[in-house]
Amino acid sequence: MATQGQVITCKAAVAWEPNKRLSIEDVQVAPPQAGEVRIQILFTALCHTDAYTWGGKDPEGLFPCILGHEAAGIVESVGEGVTEVQPGDHVIPCYQAECRECKFCKSGKTNLCGKVRVATGVGVMLNDRKSRFSINGKPIYHFMGTSTFSQYTVVHDVSVAKIDPAAPLEKVCLLGCGVPTGLGAVWNTAKVEAGATVAIFGLGTVGLAVAEGAKTAGASRVIGVDIDSKKFDVAKNFGVTEFVNPADSEKPIQQVIIDLTDGGVDYSFECIGNVQVMRAALECCHKGWGTSVIVGVASSGQEISTRPFQLVTGRVWKELLFGGFKSRSQVPWLVDKYLRKEIKVDEYITHQLPLTEINKAFELLHEKTCLRCVLDTQA
Amino acid sequence: MATQGQVITCKAAVAWEPNKRLSIEDVQVAPPQAGEVRIQILFTALCHTDAYTWGGKDPEGLFPCILGHEAAGIVESVGEGVTEVQPGDHVIPCYQAECRECKFCKSGKTNLCGKVRVATGVGVMLNDRKSRFSINGKPIYHFMGTSTFSQYTVVHDVSVAKIDPAAPLEKVCLLGCGVPTGLGAVWNTAKVEAGATVAIFGLGTVGLAVAEGAKTAGASRVIGVDIDSKKFDVAKNFGVTEFVNPADSEKPIQQVIIDLTDGGVDYSFECIGNVQVMRAALECCHKGWGTSVIVGVASSGQEISTRPFQLVTGRVWKELLFGGFKSRSQVPWLVDKYLRKEIKVDEYITHQLPLTEINKAFELLHEKTCLRCVLDTQA
Repeated sequence: MATQGQVITCKAAVAWEPNKRLSIEDVQVAPPQAGEVRIQILFTALCHTDAYTWGGKDPEGLFPCILGHEAAGIVESVGEGVTEVQPGDHVIPCYQAECRECKFCKSGKTNLCGKVRVATGVGVMLNDRKSRFSINGKPIYHFMGTSTFSQYTVVHDVSVAKIDPAAPLEKVCLLGCGVPTGLGAVWNTAKVEAGATVAIFGLGTVGLAVAEGAKTAGASRVIGVDIDSKKFDVAKNFGVTEFVNPADSEKPIQQVIIDLTDGGVDYSFECIGNVQVMRAALECCHKGWGTSVIVGVASSGQEISTRPFQLVTGRVWKELLFGGFKSRSQVPWLVDKYLRKEIKVDEYITHQLPLTEINKAFELLHEKTCLRCVLDTQA
Repeated sequence: MATQGQVITCKAAVAWEPNKRLSIEDVQVAPPQAGEVRIQILFTALCHTDAYTWGGKDPEGLFPCILGHEAAGIVESVGEGVTEVQPGDHVIPCYQAECRECKFCKSGKTNLCGKVRVATGVGVMLNDRKSRFSINGKPIYHFMGTSTFSQYTVVHDVSVAKIDPAAPLEKVCLLGCGVPTGLGAVWNTAKVEAGATVAIFGLGTVGLAVAEGAKTAGASRVIGVDIDSKKFDVAKNFGVTEFVNPADSEKPIQQVIIDLTDGGVDYSFECIGNVQVMRAALECCHKGWGTSVIVGVASSGQEISTRPFQLVTGRVWKELLFGGFKSRSQVPWLVDKYLRKEIKVDEYITHQLPLTEINKAFELLHEKTCLRCVLDTQA
C-alpha cells in the first residue's frame, strides 16, 4: 500500500482541553512500530466514557487527545512482528487488550490484560512511550489505547480483534464497547440463569443490552428502572418485561422492587454510574443470594457504601470490565452472533452523522431519544 | 423424664440491661410447645456477638434477655410434632435455622432460613410469639433463637443439630458458631483453591479457623494480619505462614500486602468487624479476581465504602452467615470431622469457668491470651 511506512495526514477530532468543543484537525499519524497496527477507522460511535473524559471527570484524562473507543475499520499497515492481522483485515480496536501471555491473561479468572496498560494509561504506545499522533510536531495523546475519532489510528496488536469481513462495519462498530459490556455483565459476570429475576437501573444502550442478555439467558422477570417512563416502549423490544419509575413512589426504589418481587431480585445491574443508585441496586437484591453488578462508571473520587449487613446476608457486589469478555477472542464471536441474528446491534443505532459533526453527536448523548450515534469518518 | 411437661426452674445468666454485669438468676423455663425442643445445656462458650449485643451495639438487642449461642447439651423433652430429635439426644443449638421447606432452604443458594426468623429476631418463639423464659412471671427474652447461658433452654426444632454422642460436649460446643464461621468462609464463601494466596485480618478464633480452612484447602501463602505480633506464634499452628503487623509500616496495610504478593492476594478475610479494615481487606486483593470475604460483624449504623473502581476491576465483596454451612445438616458433619481429627477444636479453648463466673468470662474476651472460654453450666 502506498501509505505503508509513511506518515499519514488525515482528519481527526481533537480534544484540546476538557469541556471545549472538539476540533477537526489535520493530524499526522506515524507508521506503526513493532507490535503495532495502523487502522483506517471507517465508523466510530460515541460512548458515555468519551463524554466522561472529555468532561474532565477522568483522573487519567490527558489533553490534547483523540478520544473514541467504539469503532470498526480496516488494517492499513502493521509493524514488525505483527502476525495475527495484515493489511486489508476488517477489525475492531479493543480498549481492553488480550495478550494471552501475561499473569492476567493466563489466570483463567479475568479478562483484564496487563501487557500494555502501563502505556495506554498515560496516552502513549508501549514501544517507545510516545504518541503516534501529532500536529505540526506537537504530540497528541492516545485515549484508551484506541483513539477512534480519527480517520487513522495506531493501536497495539494485542488490542485488535479481526472480524468476519462480511459484517457491516457501520453496525458492528458498536461491538467495541457498550453492547458487549451489557451482554457480558449478564452472561459472564452475573451468570444469570433461566427463571431468575432481574432489575436494570438505567435504560440506555448498556441497560438495554443487559435486558437482551437477560432475555436470552431465560430470565423470568426483567424489571427496567428509569426516571424517564418513555423509555419503556423501546425497552420492551430488548426484553424488559416491567417498568418502574422511582419518581412514581414515595418509597425508596429498593423497597419498591423488594415489594414487587417478594424479597428482592436475584440479580441487579447498575448501568448509570451513580453511586447512590449502585447502593439501591445492591439493596434491592434478594437476601441470601442476590448479586448486584456495577456496570456504570462513577465519577472520580466518588465512593460506594452500604451496611456490611447487606453483604453478610449473602448479597454479592461485583463487576468486570468490558462485560468480562476476552476482547480479541470474543469480539469476533460476538460479530458472528450478530451475523447469525442472535444478538441485536442495528436497533441501538438511533443517529448517524459525519465525523465532522462530532460536537453535535456529543450533544445527542444527552437527548433521551439517542442510544448510539455512529459517525462516518469518510463522509 | 420427671421434668417433662413441667416448668423447670434452673440457673441462668440474665442480661437485665446493656453493659450491666450479668446476673445469675433462678429462671423458669416453660415446657416446649409444638415444634420446640427443651435442651439441658451442659457447656456454652462466649462469642464476640454475645458481647456485641450485651454492649448495646445490636439494634435488635432486647433486654432483659438470656444471651449465648455457642453451646452443646442433651435434649430434655420435645413438643408436639417434633420427630427428628428425642429426649437424650446430644445436640448443638444453631442460631441459623434450617427448615428445609422455605424459599431460602429450597433455593440451593444460601444457608439462610426464613422459617423462624420473624420470632427469633424479636426474642420470642414462633408458636405463640412469647418467651419460654420467665422470672416470677416476668418474661425474659430469648437471644438468637438459642439463649445458651442457661442450664435449660427452649429452641425451635429447626434449630437443633443432632450430633454423635461420642463427641465431648465440652469441646464441640465451639462448633455452634466461631469455628464453622471461619472454616466455612474459606470452604463455602470464598471457595479457596489449592495454591491460592490468602490474607487474614484479625487472628482471634474466627481468623484462626480461617487459617485452618485455608491450610486444608491447600493455600500456598496464608498471611496473618494483626496489631498484636505475639499472636503469630499461636497462629502458625493453625496454618498462618507469614505475619504482618500494620504498625510496622508507614504504608497502608493494603499496599504492604500488594507489595508482598506481586499485586495482591487471591482471597482476603476480615475477621474483626471494623469497616476500615473491611476496606483494606478488599483493596489488598488482586485486581481481576481477588475476593474479599467479610466475616466480622460491624457495629450498627457503620458502613463499608470503597471506590467503585475496586469492583469494576474484578474484585468481589461478599459474605455468608455461619460460613455458609447448613446448620442442621452440616454441624453434625463438622462434629464427625472433629472426631476423625480432621479439624481442630480443642486448640481454641484457652479458658474454662463455671457459668456462675460468666462476668469474668466476658472480661477474658478482651484479653489477648483468650480465644474461647467454655462455661460449665453444672459446676
